[in-house]
Amino acid sequence: MGLVKVGVIGIGNMGSSHVQMLDQGQIKGATLTAICSSNASRTEWVKNNTQGNVQIFQDEETFFNESGIDAVLIATPHYSHPELAKKAFAKGIHVLIEKPAGVYTKDVLEMNEAAKSSGKVFGIMYNQRANPLYQKVRDLIHSGELGDIKRINWIVTDIYRPQSYYDSSKWRATWQGEGGGVLLNQALHHLDICQWTTGFLPKSIRAMCRIGKFHDIEVEDDVTAFMEYENGATGVFITSTGEAPGSNRFEVAGDRGKIIVENEELTFYRLTQSEREFNASYTGGFGLPEWQKVVIPVKSENANHSMIVQNWIDSIVTGSSLLAPGTEGIKALEISNAIYLSSWLNEIVELPIDPDLYYEKLQEKINTSTYRKKHVRNITLDVHGTH
Amino acid sequence: MGLVKVGVIGIGNMGSSHVQMLDQGQIKGATLTAICSSNASRTEWVKNNTQGNVQIFQDEETFFNESGIDAVLIATPHYSHPELAKKAFAKGIHVLIEKPAGVYTKDVLEMNEAAKSSGKVFGIMYNQRANPLYQKVRDLIHSGELGDIKRINWIVTDIYRPQSYYDSSKWRATWQGEGGGVLLNQALHHLDICQWTTGFLPKSIRAMCRIGKFHDIEVEDDVTAFMEYENGATGVFITSTGEAPGSNRFEVAGDRGKIIVENEELTFYRLTQSEREFNASYTGGFGLPEWQKVVIPVKSENANHSMIVQNWIDSIVTGSSLLAPGTEGIKALEISNAIYLSSWLNEIVELPIDPDLYYEKLQEKINTSTYRKKHVRNITLDVHGTH
Repeated sequence: MGLVKVGVIGIGNMGSSHVQMLDQGQIKGATLTAICSSNASRTEWVKNNTQGNVQIFQDEETFFNESGIDAVLIATPHYSHPELAKKAFAKGIHVLIEKPAGVYTKDVLEMNEAAKSSGKVFGIMYNQRANPLYQKVRDLIHSGELGDIKRINWIVTDIYRPQSYYDSSKWRATWQGEGGGVLLNQALHHLDICQWTTGFLPKSIRAMCRIGKFHDIEVEDDVTAFMEYENGATGVFITSTGEAPGSNRFEVAGDRGKIIVENEELTFYRLTQSEREFNASYTGGFGLPEWQKVVIPVKSENANHSMIVQNWIDSIVTGSSLLAPGTEGIKALEISNAIYLSSWLNEIVELPIDPDLYYEKLQEKINTSTYRKKHVRNITLDVHGTH
Repeated sequence: MGLVKVGVIGIGNMGSSHVQMLDQGQIKGATLTAICSSNASRTEWVKNNTQGNVQIFQDEETFFNESGIDAVLIATPHYSHPELAKKAFAKGIHVLIEKPAGVYTKDVLEMNEAAKSSGKVFGIMYNQRANPLYQKVRDLIHSGELGDIKRINWIVTDIYRPQSYYDSSKWRATWQGEGGGVLLNQALHHLDICQWTTGFLPKSIRAMCRIGKFHDIEVEDDVTAFMEYENGATGVFITSTGEAPGSNRFEVAGDRGKIIVENEELTFYRLTQSEREFNASYTGGFGLPEWQKVVIPVKSENANHSMIVQNWIDSIVTGSSLLAPGTEGIKALEISNAIYLSSWLNEIVELPIDPDLYYEKLQEKINTSTYRKKHVRNITLDVHGTH
């Protein structure tokens, strides 16, 4: 097999970064052969910033029909991911979508069906799954070292955004344009890592989302969610784009200790016996099972978009397995949809949520929106160093 | 004025410790002259473990009428604190109560009225207020260095208790005997420190309490509470006696940075400008206000019961102010009552809660209780090293 011919659709913050990565030959076995964007200034940017022979399309139909690409990287605004992915699968094209998988589970379910029928390689840009830190957390949990999970807490507030971020484009942080705020953007990675490392999807969620608490936007920028799991474990997920300097602390308590990830370091507090056994047998009134502090010198690495792209290309070429299968994109989305729904209904919601109900409630948000942006600048931001 | 003649009523885990502290002359200006306990083995213990001339009473009426004490330290089970305090005030006796102030706010409000009318010195054993670590947190907030508070999170799970703790006496961890679990015992200090350092009492609470999740008890041993404050700030308070080794992490985010207290260390992340000002003026899309990590080498000190007792005696002798006025005992109790009520009603509750409604709901818990302890040992535990 020769080089995989890759196209990129959507040349915004992320797409521009992907174009450069591919054009500079950072992905083995792949070549950038086409891009698609309806924005003339962005296609101009591609012309001026690529060395290879890149075909440029402004219309998606022509792009899919005439570019001759084997694989497409979809980096358009959130809403369009499922629709474009379905078009690609129908043409027999492999797909890597930017996160989120979509805005609501209803059409993501359809996309997943189309992916399965097509037999093509379908990945999603959950690049934090390539972070060695979270891979080690997953190992500790999946190997049984942590024991049965009791509690999961994640405080994610190190994703600060000033008002100028939200003002950078018209669609950003609107129900119609983006379908959500911090949950669907910055913190979606953490929702995915939370479910991926633990293997736990919540059974129910009670959440409070605050709309435009720190910014002039119509979507949420501050969230607290309480989660319950099938085995009785509880969880709290806290996120905000309005705190500086924020925190990023992930804690998982289990029957055999606890894991804390903070400041890009992993610490495992390991019990030498099961807490449940100690609880039942110890007669001293006050006391604690013996524990050890285990510092695990694993390096945190951010911004491994290239690892996800390489992993996807490798899978296309060799059939190797994907770190972030596209069909798993629905998991974090399901959690974020449930958080919104609980907040909108002001009650506990059970998972999986009803896809039709969520879709309907989201349409209400869009249709009743009275928010108008005051200072839109329509610029492309440099995402270097962000997730 | 000569030595303040102090009596101790209730010779359980805490009372025994206070008897020794006073008898060994650790409190300047005070002398232990009487104790009261209806438990013969505990009065015997006092006889064998005190050097001074301590009068022993088994009946509270005689104790208050005949002992000639100036001041009483009340260390009986929770429910009796308000009633005994009122009796003492009626006799013109100064009072220091163990925490909690009571089990429900209805009778604590009456106790507070009685204290005010009596003009006597009324303190509560919130010994963590004497911890230099929390005093410094309070300074940073009250001086305005942290700026307007945005978020308060406390994870308190370093208060592990094995089943044998709960089995140590019949009344412990029952609605009738103790009126609650982890919230009314171990974590009440943290609820007080939370409100005392920040100066914030929640406006509303949504909480989930789990009954006997990790232990064979009829009260809660695992709690998650979401709090909202008048200025829009949010908070989460998590506590459990079922995790080992637990965490104790207190985080307060404000407009000018954040405070983190963990592992008995205080770190202040200080912004050089207001985040709200930065948010409004910065045009770069991605970016953060400048911050500094300020390590504040303040020593954490636990178990300063003697400092609270000394502070109370000093106030009696010299009129100096109290670190933990008894009338402030109601604040943490109000929060804990609201957490229970929200969990029982499964809805958001506004503060202050209705004292009569809470009392009524608590009576329901007591009257419908079918729980019977299986392995009661009726022993007195050594509280050395606990809060």
